[in-house]
Amino acid sequence: MKLDSRPFVPADPAFASRVRESFARQGAMATIGARLAGVEPGYCAIELVPTPALAQQHGYVHAGVVAMIVDSAGGYAGYTLFPATASVLTVEFKLNLLAPAQGERLIAEGFVVKSGRTLTVTRGEVHAQSAGRRTLVALMQQTLIAMHGKPDAPAA
Amino acid sequence: MKLDSRPFVPADPAFASRVRESFARQGAMATIGARLAGVEPGYCAIELVPTPALAQQHGYVHAGVVAMIVDSAGGYAGYTLFPATASVLTVEFKLNLLAPAQGERLIAEGFVVKSGRTLTVTRGEVHAQSAGRRTLVALMQQTLIAMHGKPDAPAA
Amino acid sequence: MKLDSRPFVPADPAFASRVRESFARQGAMATIGARLAGVEPGYCAIELVPTPALAQQHGYVHAGVVAMIVDSAGGYAGYTLFPATASVLTVEFKLNLLAPAQGERLIAEGFVVKSGRTLTVTRGEVHAQSAGRRTLVALMQQTLIAMHGKPDAPAA
Amino acid sequence: MKLDSRPFVPADPAFASRVRESFARQGAMATIGARLAGVEPGYCAIELVPTPALAQQHGYVHAGVVAMIVDSAGGYAGYTLFPATASVLTVEFKLNLLAPAQGERLIAEGFVVKSGRTLTVTRGEVHAQSAGRRTLVALMQQTLIAMHGKPDAPAA
Repeated sequence: MKLDSRPFVPADPAFASRVRESFARQGAMATIGARLAGVEPGYCAIELVPTPALAQQHGYVHAGVVAMIVDSAGGYAGYTLFPATASVLTVEFKLNLLAPAQGERLIAEGFVVKSGRTLTVTRGEVHAQSAGRRTLVALMQQTLIAMHGKPDAPAA
Repeated sequence: MKLDSRPFVPADPAFASRVRESFARQGAMATIGARLAGVEPGYCAIELVPTPALAQQHGYVHAGVVAMIVDSAGGYAGYTLFPATASVLTVEFKLNLLAPAQGERLIAEGFVVKSGRTLTVTRGEVHAQSAGRRTLVALMQQTLIAMHGKPDAPAA
Repeated sequence: MKLDSRPFVPADPAFASRVRESFARQGAMATIGARLAGVEPGYCAIELVPTPALAQQHGYVHAGVVAMIVDSAGGYAGYTLFPATASVLTVEFKLNLLAPAQGERLIAEGFVVKSGRTLTVTRGEVHAQSAGRRTLVALMQQTLIAMHGKPDAPAA
Repeated sequence: MKLDSRPFVPADPAFASRVRESFARQGAMATIGARLAGVEPGYCAIELVPTPALAQQHGYVHAGVVAMIVDSAGGYAGYTLFPATASVLTVEFKLNLLAPAQGERLIAEGFVVKSGRTLTVTRGEVHAQSAGRRTLVALMQQTLIAMHGKPDAPAA
């Protein structure tokens, strides 16, 4: 793995609380029981406990639910590097499903690959964790857009 | 739009009931309130009513929820052409988000582009419907795999 | 096929000559012998005659050569709708290969799905034509960005 | 970067010569002047020197040419792990373009993420190298299929 790896410097020192507040406004994350598990410059992790309410027809977590957590992890990874006056939208993502999404816990991680003024590219991984073993269940590549002048939070 | 358009002939005449039963086993579709709205050879439609429980941080339906319904629509479109003894898995999909997913109703449609013995390729669209107007909100391209000898339904 | 299909109105009436001049500046298109075969608002077609110089290891046209013509077709489809003062860059594309790329002729077509001020989304198809039969060999979904204030042509 | 990283064990000890012979049969690689620069289990690198004959309209290497080398790098990375009796086809790939492809040399690298009996998933990177500096210019995610019983080389 030899991606460029300059350390990322956030434009807004309050990036982590900005991510936490935005995550808390997502009804969809609450509905599936997802939890914000880590926020660093250019990085975000989201955890999920598989339940029958999140299953597809064979009992594994639905590919779309896997997409929900890794799209959000990638989106917030990018958002950590945005100025406070911008919000983030997903332009597109591509997701490969590599193994059944099951186990005690799913961990979705988003990593910024390139952060530009308008567009940001991230990659994402989802691992299933069970009895101390991690299995890679999904791989994502994503494009984000920064909406400058449109802060994420509604004005008070 | 000039895609090849031979009419598809299902291998299993009971394809529609097979899709309905499989859809009914998906806890995730019930959790988000999605409804199977149409099944034809090489085609499937799924509808969803936006609610705050499905929202991202700006109040629109989460991109991952959009992914859930269009991934399922594409998967079942492919599955209509499978023999009764096979089940379907998503290998990968790519989703572009084109407009905010909001309105009275979202309609996800999956269309088979090419159905092979092992791999099937579909395309998908999600439209938002509001006051009689339809807006294209997402566009998908997807690869499926047929798991031969592994019927979708658990043995009774 | 039910994509939104408003007729596209080009911002620049000279869009077709702009596309032709830009295509003529592409050394890569000359190297592979690609020919501009059609330009309409929101649409572009590029043709290619398969030769051993374009082949992968089994003698079919290389997937990357297929990508070259359909990426260009999609890019110019988007570019037809740009103002004369903007140029076009590919942000990303996703390509499914559906059948061996061989025959008398390959025809790549790009169709604009949504044209925005900054981002444009297109879809693309590549058909092989042989003895009067057309076979779909590849399917693409693409995101473009308009570089405003950077005309495609070098200043004279 | 925390992808699963078991060392890969090739099924065929002659994997490297198999890759070299296959690469040598690709007319397309010769046409663009690409060179096989490294082959290891689950890994392949291909180099290319930018020339005007490979350029798009602004003088950078065409996105499709970038796709050619990274698609081949990913394909051969997967092929290193195949048995001698199988050949490799690209099912699909998705490519993000991150920076202009220019400089003294482009280096495309393919990395196997998951190698299965039928499907293999890889990721790819393309760096531009100039005056000792490396810039990431493209990021790929790819699905391959193994064609068992169809060796890559034509029977003598």
